[in-house]
Amino acid sequence: MTQLDSFATLDFDRARRCGFPEVVFGLGKTPEQVAAIASKLIEVHEVVLITRVTHAHATALKELQSDASFVENCGILYIDRRSEDVRISGTTCREILASSKGQGKVVVCCAGTTDLPVAEEAAITACIMGSHVNLIADVGVAGVHRILNHQELVQSARVLIVVAGMEGALPSLVAGLVDVPIIAVPTSVGYGASFGGIAALLAMLNSCAGGVSVVNIDNGFGAGQIAHRINAPRWLDLRYN
Amino acid sequence: MTQLDSFATLDFDRARRCGFPEVVFGLGKTPEQVAAIASKLIEVHEVVLITRVTHAHATALKELQSDASFVENCGILYIDRRSEDVRISGTTCREILASSKGQGKVVVCCAGTTDLPVAEEAAITACIMGSHVNLIADVGVAGVHRILNHQELVQSARVLIVVAGMEGALPSLVAGLVDVPIIAVPTSVGYGASFGGIAALLAMLNSCAGGVSVVNIDNGFGAGQIAHRINAPRWLDLRYN
Amino acid sequence: MTQLDSFATLDFDRARRCGFPEVVFGLGKTPEQVAAIASKLIEVHEVVLITRVTHAHATALKELQSDASFVENCGILYIDRRSEDVRISGTTCREILASSKGQGKVVVCCAGTTDLPVAEEAAITACIMGSHVNLIADVGVAGVHRILNHQELVQSARVLIVVAGMEGALPSLVAGLVDVPIIAVPTSVGYGASFGGIAALLAMLNSCAGGVSVVNIDNGFGAGQIAHRINAPRWLDLRYN
Amino acid sequence: MTQLDSFATLDFDRARRCGFPEVVFGLGKTPEQVAAIASKLIEVHEVVLITRVTHAHATALKELQSDASFVENCGILYIDRRSEDVRISGTTCREILASSKGQGKVVVCCAGTTDLPVAEEAAITACIMGSHVNLIADVGVAGVHRILNHQELVQSARVLIVVAGMEGALPSLVAGLVDVPIIAVPTSVGYGASFGGIAALLAMLNSCAGGVSVVNIDNGFGAGQIAHRINAPRWLDLRYN
Amino acid sequence: MTQLDSFATLDFDRARRCGFPEVVFGLGKTPEQVAAIASKLIEVHEVVLITRVTHAHATALKELQSDASFVENCGILYIDRRSEDVRISGTTCREILASSKGQGKVVVCCAGTTDLPVAEEAAITACIMGSHVNLIADVGVAGVHRILNHQELVQSARVLIVVAGMEGALPSLVAGLVDVPIIAVPTSVGYGASFGGIAALLAMLNSCAGGVSVVNIDNGFGAGQIAHRINAPRWLDLRYN
Amino acid sequence: MTQLDSFATLDFDRARRCGFPEVVFGLGKTPEQVAAIASKLIEVHEVVLITRVTHAHATALKELQSDASFVENCGILYIDRRSEDVRISGTTCREILASSKGQGKVVVCCAGTTDLPVAEEAAITACIMGSHVNLIADVGVAGVHRILNHQELVQSARVLIVVAGMEGALPSLVAGLVDVPIIAVPTSVGYGASFGGIAALLAMLNSCAGGVSVVNIDNGFGAGQIAHRINAPRWLDLRYN
Amino acid sequence: MTQLDSFATLDFDRARRCGFPEVVFGLGKTPEQVAAIASKLIEVHEVVLITRVTHAHATALKELQSDASFVENCGILYIDRRSEDVRISGTTCREILASSKGQGKVVVCCAGTTDLPVAEEAAITACIMGSHVNLIADVGVAGVHRILNHQELVQSARVLIVVAGMEGALPSLVAGLVDVPIIAVPTSVGYGASFGGIAALLAMLNSCAGGVSVVNIDNGFGAGQIAHRINAPRWLDLRYN
Amino acid sequence: MTQLDSFATLDFDRARRCGFPEVVFGLGKTPEQVAAIASKLIEVHEVVLITRVTHAHATALKELQSDASFVENCGILYIDRRSEDVRISGTTCREILASSKGQGKVVVCCAGTTDLPVAEEAAITACIMGSHVNLIADVGVAGVHRILNHQELVQSARVLIVVAGMEGALPSLVAGLVDVPIIAVPTSVGYGASFGGIAALLAMLNSCAGGVSVVNIDNGFGAGQIAHRINAPRWLDLRYN
Repeated sequence: MTQLDSFATLDFDRARRCGFPEVVFGLGKTPEQVAAIASKLIEVHEVVLITRVTHAHATALKELQSDASFVENCGILYIDRRSEDVRISGTTCREILASSKGQGKVVVCCAGTTDLPVAEEAAITACIMGSHVNLIADVGVAGVHRILNHQELVQSARVLIVVAGMEGALPSLVAGLVDVPIIAVPTSVGYGASFGGIAALLAMLNSCAGGVSVVNIDNGFGAGQIAHRINAPRWLDLRYN
Repeated sequence: MTQLDSFATLDFDRARRCGFPEVVFGLGKTPEQVAAIASKLIEVHEVVLITRVTHAHATALKELQSDASFVENCGILYIDRRSEDVRISGTTCREILASSKGQGKVVVCCAGTTDLPVAEEAAITACIMGSHVNLIADVGVAGVHRILNHQELVQSARVLIVVAGMEGALPSLVAGLVDVPIIAVPTSVGYGASFGGIAALLAMLNSCAGGVSVVNIDNGFGAGQIAHRINAPRWLDLRYN
Repeated sequence: MTQLDSFATLDFDRARRCGFPEVVFGLGKTPEQVAAIASKLIEVHEVVLITRVTHAHATALKELQSDASFVENCGILYIDRRSEDVRISGTTCREILASSKGQGKVVVCCAGTTDLPVAEEAAITACIMGSHVNLIADVGVAGVHRILNHQELVQSARVLIVVAGMEGALPSLVAGLVDVPIIAVPTSVGYGASFGGIAALLAMLNSCAGGVSVVNIDNGFGAGQIAHRINAPRWLDLRYN
Repeated sequence: MTQLDSFATLDFDRARRCGFPEVVFGLGKTPEQVAAIASKLIEVHEVVLITRVTHAHATALKELQSDASFVENCGILYIDRRSEDVRISGTTCREILASSKGQGKVVVCCAGTTDLPVAEEAAITACIMGSHVNLIADVGVAGVHRILNHQELVQSARVLIVVAGMEGALPSLVAGLVDVPIIAVPTSVGYGASFGGIAALLAMLNSCAGGVSVVNIDNGFGAGQIAHRINAPRWLDLRYN
Repeated sequence: MTQLDSFATLDFDRARRCGFPEVVFGLGKTPEQVAAIASKLIEVHEVVLITRVTHAHATALKELQSDASFVENCGILYIDRRSEDVRISGTTCREILASSKGQGKVVVCCAGTTDLPVAEEAAITACIMGSHVNLIADVGVAGVHRILNHQELVQSARVLIVVAGMEGALPSLVAGLVDVPIIAVPTSVGYGASFGGIAALLAMLNSCAGGVSVVNIDNGFGAGQIAHRINAPRWLDLRYN
Repeated sequence: MTQLDSFATLDFDRARRCGFPEVVFGLGKTPEQVAAIASKLIEVHEVVLITRVTHAHATALKELQSDASFVENCGILYIDRRSEDVRISGTTCREILASSKGQGKVVVCCAGTTDLPVAEEAAITACIMGSHVNLIADVGVAGVHRILNHQELVQSARVLIVVAGMEGALPSLVAGLVDVPIIAVPTSVGYGASFGGIAALLAMLNSCAGGVSVVNIDNGFGAGQIAHRINAPRWLDLRYN
Repeated sequence: MTQLDSFATLDFDRARRCGFPEVVFGLGKTPEQVAAIASKLIEVHEVVLITRVTHAHATALKELQSDASFVENCGILYIDRRSEDVRISGTTCREILASSKGQGKVVVCCAGTTDLPVAEEAAITACIMGSHVNLIADVGVAGVHRILNHQELVQSARVLIVVAGMEGALPSLVAGLVDVPIIAVPTSVGYGASFGGIAALLAMLNSCAGGVSVVNIDNGFGAGQIAHRINAPRWLDLRYN
Repeated sequence: MTQLDSFATLDFDRARRCGFPEVVFGLGKTPEQVAAIASKLIEVHEVVLITRVTHAHATALKELQSDASFVENCGILYIDRRSEDVRISGTTCREILASSKGQGKVVVCCAGTTDLPVAEEAAITACIMGSHVNLIADVGVAGVHRILNHQELVQSARVLIVVAGMEGALPSLVAGLVDVPIIAVPTSVGYGASFGGIAALLAMLNSCAGGVSVVNIDNGFGAGQIAHRINAPRWLDLRYN
């Protein structure tokens, strides 16, 4: 099956069905494949999002599409040609969140700085899909005053994404402060008995606090997408957001 | 520590903080403990929900509170003394869902009849919290036409709860049909290499479809609570529902 | 090997070597075996402690030693014939802790009421060995204000025992509040992906907070013994405690 | 043991016993070893199949046997000197399947494009052994219409091979559409809680649909061989195929 | 949901789609449920098969359908009202296999006598679906002469089912003797490190011999169904069998 | 988030709360990050400790802080500008322990020479925090006379750290010789069924000897910190040490 | 298959091939089955050994064979009608070992009293097969002086069986004292993270001491059989023993 | 700790205690360390054995000891300066086994050619310790005639080492042919659900055949050492061998 053939499988219809064009999962794809697929998608859609890529993929795509942006810290690559009132821009998470005119409020919290790439993947995903996003870093449970200092912001969210590796305790703590849904994202951060994220995953599945559901280890993208759908549901009259 | 002491730990304040009084997890508590705790709660709140109990617990509570209702198939016990426009009634899932005047729409799907108790726990939980709920049973992936026959109802939901044991494939299938959040609930239904629900849990965490987050094995209550929070968020002007 | 033979293996010398007579692990022993062993030990020592027993064991021992006391909630059986200034008494954890004239301070925290039996096993063990012990129940991370309300007591401890099932997050939270050692005890409380305490065990081993070491699932006794050794070390001039 | 010695262990008799000469598993063998073994086999047999090799192995063999063909995408190397009515040719899966004059019908389905190498290994294996094979790619359960669009082809198969990673749900879906045997092949595609293919393997072993049996993770070759034996059994009068 | 409701989910159409009416999995169903479901099915079909039931289920069904037969050793219950040329009868595996006029040949081998219930479930399933079945018991690998003594019968099969617990080695041994497909069934027979069948399951998935695919632990029914489909495929002109 | 931003998260207040400045976990940080963070910390504190770093990190830091010391064998980097009566110095574990004027006594034992890096991380951590530390290497259980030869030193400790990989048996052996707390550290040393330290971890959690608590696999730092807190508690009048 | 049929599978020839008649594994067999099989075997052989049975099995056999003996503590049942110079007798392990005239020396050590049943199964097995056996109980590693007190006996053995649960450390300790083979038997004794014997099993497989091989969890019989074959090999001129 | 220090831990006394000087486990040691340790040992002993090393280690040692020999295929390095009647020589397994004047008979069997390195490690270990060794390669269970062709040799052994990866079935097969002890060695050969040797390890622990004990995954050395101790026990009058 040649590379061209594989374009046949792109799901051009997804934007209509699901509200955002198909997102490309870059892991395991070559720079050439990513560049070709993204170029094909941008012909049809105004915005393209690619996750889990490296500098090499970014270079390959920029040669074809000079307006592609690469967020190195979390391996996100995107092209945004939408109208200005929804377009995002920037090459760091901070810049992108600042550029957003998104609606509602998604708050992303993460426990340690090593969890940041996953948290940023989640934040940028929700942001590019149209949510207003705030990111609070380094609020691990070992210093409980840190999350409490952000309590007002936390409680203003319509949905929270909580990212943590190691013992994965942060979602339970945060869930006790709010009554909105929490998307918990275990990360593979840790060593020894963290078993590549299993410890955090199990902790989150067993959260004693209400409102917590869980996605796969390191799946920042999935969490961002779900959070956006909760924050800005399509069934809602948008004037109210 | 005497039994009375343990009342001190009841969280009477939760209704204000989280929108619904503390729910009692009955597993591992004696009938007497459950009856005492529930009676204490109903003094303060208008509605009390207890999950994972048996006939013996129901009998013990009914002696103290004659208006308690027991849903045997899924082990739910409740007392509802709210005003009529939100009050539910009945002792089967069907009756309860029919009695509801809830808002929005939560749809609960389950794969096999053995998954029904978990699905009903989810449905009744969301319903008693104030959501309008529909339950679709026996739509496993091995007969794909079954879920497709319900496509319209599925697509009318603001959030779906998908319950499945064994290979846990149903959430991926459903997620491909909608663009709203899916709460996936693995069940311990199965034998051999289902490992008490691990097979279904792993499948759901690895769902290739967007929008799926997961709760603990057999955690119908948790799924129902999250779904209600997504379906009828407190930040939303309720007139619009 | 007859039952009498097995007495030969009792380690009568342990009190001198380790500061407290050998403790009997009751699980898997018959009431008769426990009664016989305990009676043999009390001939030589002034105090005997037996863990993990049921009502039947207590009855069997009381027939031989009428001053034996049974703490039903956590399955502890003991005989204390020491001089009054160290002797404990009572058949509930509360009574025993109140009767103690122990030194220093051990604080035991537990997350949920179902964790109480393990927490009480730990508290009574440390108490009978000679420590002053406080027990704080129901301070799970989902209501962070609860542990913060006890902050002064927590910070007055020389060592803490933190008991938790499910996601096992409490030790990390507590460890962030103090600079003394924390003994974390995972419990088998939970269902589904708690895997009989594995989730809590892994979380505790991966604690991001300093000062946390871990014992086996449900091993309240072990935690109590270690805590006592830290709180009242034999190398310390006792006048200073 | 010298390299020459190891030829003694080649099973030259297998073609007579099992209908096709011994297939060489290339993983862990050096290019030189593969080239030597394949050259030894082609002296005795008209066709040689080698799986799991890289470009280096292909180069080494082509130096000795210039008519060797390498299918890079799935790491298959083969020499086919059989008579023209059964001989296959080509260096892509598509070419090989097109060149075949095989009998009956084997249909290979795979969920995602990253599953393609395993699916191609299965397809080429069945094809070179003498089956007519069709390959349907990218029909994952998240877009159920995709497999339904191929329903006629799926139902024309005598046996199906269904290849999927991640949640491994596709075999259950396909099995509900047909009444012929399904060989399910879990792949190691995925991350986090896919655990290198365990999630897909468990899902397939727990399939709620009838007719599904499973081979090892990534074992496309094994699936292809079994499918051929089901599609074109030696006990069947071949005129009827 | 009342019991009557659940009839709505019976798949009466399966016989046409898949060649045999829906089979009832009895595990977890009450005697009353099984009796009711089977009675409903036999109104529409000429033959009904129920697996994993106990004496109590058999008694309940016989009260409603006096011609139901129960095979106690493997927990199979069936009603066969087909015409005499395909009808089976008897209450032991031996009697049933002897009563069959099935076509082709399925051979079932099992390693130890404790594996017999699973082997019989497989044999009776294939037999009632229309295959001619032979069962060879107690041919474990520790006495290799035993299976070799049956070599002629083994080699006459169109498909083999090989059932084994503990180390699960028998499928590899048998697969070396034939060139037809092998369905391997791991059983939960064993103790300690057999982990309820995991050891046998892993061994079978890793079989070094060609042609082996695997079903779930103790899934004799699944193996029998697959074997029948391979032995007597619907695409085959039946005169040739 | 720029690198400078991440300084905001450094916990400058920890020295006051917990008795020693925040320790930097180097694994996963770049040389530049480590150098920048350590330089920032040394502005505020008199001593900085960094664990799990390589030669490259050491070089980067030394360019900024020429008095940084690197202990290559266990990957520890530190700057110590405290007054001479507590300052340590040296670039091997031996030198550092010899330079210490610490109080009390911590004894670190390890089973094999491959366990030495973890043992040294523990020893240096406790030493730099202010404990007097002795390290006994190569006293594995397979030569029991070796640990017995050190019995006097072992029994003079206020707390022991016991480091072992493979079967992890040493803590049980040592715990039988003393009545002070044992911190057991499993290491990832081993192969095959050691599963990266799981075998040792499980053995230690199941120790039949009293007084043993456990930290994460390879977590020498954690063990050293806990041991120091037990050996030199802040509640103790320091004149007595 | 009737019960009589299953006799056909008894391996009457094993005594000639393997030096001792087939041993019956009682677990999962009914009292009637065990009584029938043993009676059949004793017709042909002079000695019959049955393991893993309960009182009920013993009663059933004694009704048929009044000279059957039952060792309740380890669930062994045997009939010995050999000539007096090899015959054993007694109903406790102690009596049987004392009655033996076996050759060479097998020493069985076990860690705790709860490990005794497995140790006795091993000891009696080796003894009835013809070895001289000594059993040393309660020599766990937590009191190392205990095994050292038996050093002379330990070093006089030709082979040792070392039985231990929990952390499974004893085999490594013993292996350091001798240069003969050690058969290590993990037991399921323990709780929590012992995982039914997995902790001990892994520890033994990872023993740092030479000469240790391992059998399945609780497999005392297997260890006894292997030890006998090492202690009294058939290739050895028996006069020399 | 300097490198010289670590010599202090070499166990020079082991040769007297255990019959052969300490063997060096090379994995994780640098070429320089191995060369230094081996040179130190050869000063005291006449023979030195090092396992798990690479070409680099061999080169480093040969510079210091020109008579060192390296067996590349299995990573063994040795120096043999014993008297000619026991000395071995050669750089392949075949040469070494041929050069041996060892006593008794050890037979090593392995399933596949990829298992050869482990089998050779076992064979050379037993050989250098003084056993006569035969090695039979490529006798996997999938071609049962292969091991049966060697039946006479197999049955002449005093002890067998059976090496297998993947499904690990060979030990059970071989154990059924003999009545001497079998040392089973699982290898990490395989992929997918072989889990690095776990599948083979579990299969061997669950062997239904008598006489099989197991060592760690890939532990050829351990198996060789045990086999030698069984084949040529020190308690045996050596004239009889």
